[in-house]
Amino acid sequence: MNNTETVPILRLTEQGISNINDVVAREFAVTIVLNGRELVTLLCSPADLQYLAVGFLLSEGLLTAKDEIRRMTDDYRTGTVRIDTERDERPTGAAASARSITSGCGGGVSFHSAADVVQGQAKVESGAEISTHEVMALMKEFQHRSSTFIATGGVHSAALCDRNRILIFSEDIGRHNAIDKVFGECILNGVPTGDRMLFTSGRVSSEIVLKTARRHVPIIVSKSAPTDLGLRLADDLGVTLLGFVRGGRMNVYTHDRRIARDGKQDC
Amino acid sequence: MNNTETVPILRLTEQGISNINDVVAREFAVTIVLNGRELVTLLCSPADLQYLAVGFLLSEGLLTAKDEIRRMTDDYRTGTVRIDTERDERPTGAAASARSITSGCGGGVSFHSAADVVQGQAKVESGAEISTHEVMALMKEFQHRSSTFIATGGVHSAALCDRNRILIFSEDIGRHNAIDKVFGECILNGVPTGDRMLFTSGRVSSEIVLKTARRHVPIIVSKSAPTDLGLRLADDLGVTLLGFVRGGRMNVYTHDRRIARDGKQDC
Repeated sequence: MNNTETVPILRLTEQGISNINDVVAREFAVTIVLNGRELVTLLCSPADLQYLAVGFLLSEGLLTAKDEIRRMTDDYRTGTVRIDTERDERPTGAAASARSITSGCGGGVSFHSAADVVQGQAKVESGAEISTHEVMALMKEFQHRSSTFIATGGVHSAALCDRNRILIFSEDIGRHNAIDKVFGECILNGVPTGDRMLFTSGRVSSEIVLKTARRHVPIIVSKSAPTDLGLRLADDLGVTLLGFVRGGRMNVYTHDRRIARDGKQDC
Repeated sequence: MNNTETVPILRLTEQGISNINDVVAREFAVTIVLNGRELVTLLCSPADLQYLAVGFLLSEGLLTAKDEIRRMTDDYRTGTVRIDTERDERPTGAAASARSITSGCGGGVSFHSAADVVQGQAKVESGAEISTHEVMALMKEFQHRSSTFIATGGVHSAALCDRNRILIFSEDIGRHNAIDKVFGECILNGVPTGDRMLFTSGRVSSEIVLKTARRHVPIIVSKSAPTDLGLRLADDLGVTLLGFVRGGRMNVYTHDRRIARDGKQDC
């Protein structure tokens, strides 16, 4: 299903007024039904709903591997993805009621409480390295791939990369959704995530770091800013966090040992 | 409480590597306790928690006027705002379980389902007008006021304006939160919102339009993009929606009757 729609608008510029057609990002409501029960309704871009649903369950710790999925169907007409898993599991009691709502640019929800966010999450152990030159080249490719953003200015992008190229790419009106779609696609298509990198257009808050660490990804590269909790969590979980990667510069917030310094001329 | 924190980072530029101190946006978890029961935990910027809590309740339809608040306290140490209201009300049953999670740039949660978003919401009736010149001048002031954004690049801004000036201004890591803080401050300090404008740095999705229409604000002005549902809802609810207001131009998506066309030279 298409992520965009064309609408007639009035454009006012210094040159005057014109009636034009403009492309806007679509906003679609999808309900995830887990083991017969409505789990959540997400507002998202309408493409790749199964990837989104699986990625969301991964991020919430309600799914850990593809073979736990017994059956999955989507219905764009009703905006529903139904997933039956081996474990008949959903958040209950305190976990279901103490909902932690994300802050911004990308929305989302977490069933865990912010306080115990690190508990039970193992550190990411990886000897992966990347040079500043490679980071810059990948960011350039990442931005060129963002066709919905280029058309609408209204979506976020996320990608799984190795040192040389983009392996999985996604766009969504939500920064959380775009990342969940990437990890959902990885799980469903058997694409390994360890020793690789997550690229994101959006702000890196604590939940973004947590969902990335859950997929054992050692390096996060963002075009935007981190929050203080995001970088503290990255520090605790052994994740290398790069922000503001644009215009020939970058900030390295945590675990700079994975950045191979290739000298001034490459940066 | 301060919205920012200073952290040591490594900056890599074309000129080389330097160890510097950088300012990042703080991310704070606040739990709203309504009539003794935990309602929600929001990730937000730590300032103005009472405004946020009241604005959130307004947006969710759990509060409509200041005099419904019997008591309110905040505790930054535990990250809690406790509000007791006249009505002992909270979402129950289907409303509580069918949670609609927002998509992006600003996060948030809504207890209503996306399908019935317009039901029960009256159209915004207002003869308010603004010229393109006034919109541009206010957007310039709006961006200059965004000191946390200027320092961190990691927050959203929102403001209530009349034709001449900014009346209420707020910044938060979440675009929803920034708007909720503006409307919370309006209600607590008796600032009328009808016939005025909401300025936002963030994307205008359906929920942003709905929460603005709930405060009877007839004009939304955004630096960013709308979604298709956002502009459809604005059209249905009688809200004038302007997007991409920057660089001497703007897009008018709905109800252009409120834009006084002051000619080429003023735009």
